[in-house]
Amino acid sequence: MERCDLLADVSEETGVIVRPYGSPSMRKVNEIVAGWMREAGMSVRRDGIGNLIGRYEGTSDGTLILGSHLDTVRDTGKYDGILGVMVALACVRRLHDQNEHLSFAIEIVAFADEEGLRFGTTFLGSSVYAGDLDPALLELTDNARVTLADAVREFGGDLDSLRSEGRDPEGLIGYCEVHIEQGPTLEELDLPVGVVSAITGQSRVSASFTGGAGHAGTVPMRGRKDALCAAAELVLEAERAAREEPGSVATVGEIAVFPGASNVIPGEARLSLDIRHGDDATRGRLRDHLEAQTHGIAESRGCGYEWQPRQETPAVPTGPRLSATLERAVENSGVAVHRLPSGAGHDAAQLAALAPVAMLFVRCKDGISHNPEESVKEEDVDVAIDVLGEFLRLLAGEQPTLVREVGV
Amino acid sequence: MERCDLLADVSEETGVIVRPYGSPSMRKVNEIVAGWMREAGMSVRRDGIGNLIGRYEGTSDGTLILGSHLDTVRDTGKYDGILGVMVALACVRRLHDQNEHLSFAIEIVAFADEEGLRFGTTFLGSSVYAGDLDPALLELTDNARVTLADAVREFGGDLDSLRSEGRDPEGLIGYCEVHIEQGPTLEELDLPVGVVSAITGQSRVSASFTGGAGHAGTVPMRGRKDALCAAAELVLEAERAAREEPGSVATVGEIAVFPGASNVIPGEARLSLDIRHGDDATRGRLRDHLEAQTHGIAESRGCGYEWQPRQETPAVPTGPRLSATLERAVENSGVAVHRLPSGAGHDAAQLAALAPVAMLFVRCKDGISHNPEESVKEEDVDVAIDVLGEFLRLLAGEQPTLVREVGV
Repeated sequence: MERCDLLADVSEETGVIVRPYGSPSMRKVNEIVAGWMREAGMSVRRDGIGNLIGRYEGTSDGTLILGSHLDTVRDTGKYDGILGVMVALACVRRLHDQNEHLSFAIEIVAFADEEGLRFGTTFLGSSVYAGDLDPALLELTDNARVTLADAVREFGGDLDSLRSEGRDPEGLIGYCEVHIEQGPTLEELDLPVGVVSAITGQSRVSASFTGGAGHAGTVPMRGRKDALCAAAELVLEAERAAREEPGSVATVGEIAVFPGASNVIPGEARLSLDIRHGDDATRGRLRDHLEAQTHGIAESRGCGYEWQPRQETPAVPTGPRLSATLERAVENSGVAVHRLPSGAGHDAAQLAALAPVAMLFVRCKDGISHNPEESVKEEDVDVAIDVLGEFLRLLAGEQPTLVREVGV
Repeated sequence: MERCDLLADVSEETGVIVRPYGSPSMRKVNEIVAGWMREAGMSVRRDGIGNLIGRYEGTSDGTLILGSHLDTVRDTGKYDGILGVMVALACVRRLHDQNEHLSFAIEIVAFADEEGLRFGTTFLGSSVYAGDLDPALLELTDNARVTLADAVREFGGDLDSLRSEGRDPEGLIGYCEVHIEQGPTLEELDLPVGVVSAITGQSRVSASFTGGAGHAGTVPMRGRKDALCAAAELVLEAERAAREEPGSVATVGEIAVFPGASNVIPGEARLSLDIRHGDDATRGRLRDHLEAQTHGIAESRGCGYEWQPRQETPAVPTGPRLSATLERAVENSGVAVHRLPSGAGHDAAQLAALAPVAMLFVRCKDGISHNPEESVKEEDVDVAIDVLGEFLRLLAGEQPTLVREVGV
């Protein structure tokens, strides 16, 4: 907790936490965390994009990866990403303090860009690590017209290595990430931690209705083709349908009407639709239902419509055996096991391309995240460290089994 | 029609009609129209704000006012306002061509600012004429930081006279304004003209809902307080309630959500509500119903709300006897009489403080106005000129009666 406080002060702005990729504050936290890694008996290196990697050797082959990210959005809290790295460090440090080495090595990866604040490159660090970087991204520019390629160089990265295949999956046991829940479920259930069942898939759509603009005073109700009324129907249908489908969420977060004057009937309404579910088929059904409803609403009102898919991200199930081990670790720590999907994306989703992944969520206050009021309880963090430590011990006992799982 | 085309070319921008108060183009149209007034046998003067006034003398006492406005919004059509001045001019010119004078004088007033494009001062010209100017308006500035007071001076106006009582109502028979409908009703009924029953009253409200912003992926549906969903319910209730109340319209023309990102549940939604009806009590009932619904929606969703009245403009009924004469004129011209409310505001509403008012609406294509596609048929304008000419003749026959009405 002290370390989270300390890192929160390393920011691009005084009084506000903001730590974008490649910034001086990002360089500074990497130096601080590298020091803590060394104190915990780890060797430290950086990869081509600037992810910080600490390695704690094992007595035999095989490597387990732990980690999360150290970059932030602007005006945010102390724990999103950071907590996962700190909990992993605490576990390795406990091993080091007891001069204990497990059969497998532990690598803690502190990803350098998950939020994508500077270049809009969400999951940049973990996608490079997983060997899935789109080289076109290197031409993106930030607000100061600096390209990502230049930012990588300036941050001490190595552009050539970025085009490589990423981390060799050979011998990887898996990846386990601790993260604040960023939702209210654990708090509602009065549980300190929960095991993630899947990182939900996501459909993002831009929808619009085109009706007829007109004078708010002179066009009678019966002759209107009010595009906002059509959009309002879709907003409420998205809410109704998502409520009926357990585990799903649907959100209209943006809406705009044109021409947008108080005395003019909206001739056009545009909105964003964000649909998520842990199961891709269910999410697809919900998305298709809402597309059909959009068509139906437009038809019944004599309006036109557009339905433009913007993003289709499949769900990433967590590794069943790795997650079962994590659940036993929760149980052994005296906490009731609760599985829950992650509605937000995480580095774990990228790592799933390399190895089985597992995630432990830590309760956070009121589900608030990406906000200075982000808050976790010290006793919940204690539980998370205990659970992750127990997970390492259990894994050390069953490691041969898990090594086979990697090959599946 | 040719004159409307000609005036459309007098604009502040090439290829786009825009003629704000006090602009060089406004000065130019005043000069052109003053010439046409003189050709029609009228004496011409300008009042303190720059309204152009042409007077055609009568054989006895009493004055009937005709008119509309010559200023425009930006990128608009050729007829809104302008047509009313041109039809009045055509009627006076017919009298002049036949060397005929009625018992009463006719004054055509071409108002210099009805749209309020430059200073946000809707009905400025007619409110000065009616002696109802708020002197505080003179301190308003346009986008170039020019005050209205300076613009009045620059336009050749007289600031001192603006604070006077306005036109002396003594001897005024009434005011009759010809205007395009700006709505689809006459076109639907296949009628060239209609008689306005009232200028509808208007309630403008800013409403907002406050819920809880949150991550679109991590906050389950059941725990949400989505401010946009609350707003969507109000949008649809406004539509439903206005459809049920004949003659009423209700419009949400503006909506905005905050923070306004596709992956964030809206924590706040703000919208404008515009409610109109020809009867003030009915409009008040509809407004109160929607306020109660706003309260109910907020309560059922655990949201907060605000309901801020922005404007309450009472309906202005047209003068019953003057309108009855106008209806007889329509009938005598071989057109079925249809009475309809005006959902838009007009200079006539200001003039009602001085004298009884009547309005004749002319059919326009698809109800489109404030748009380059504004369109009227030449044969409908012929009918409007015939009707207004017949109205003058009928009025000349019954004038003693109407003079008494002024005193009522």
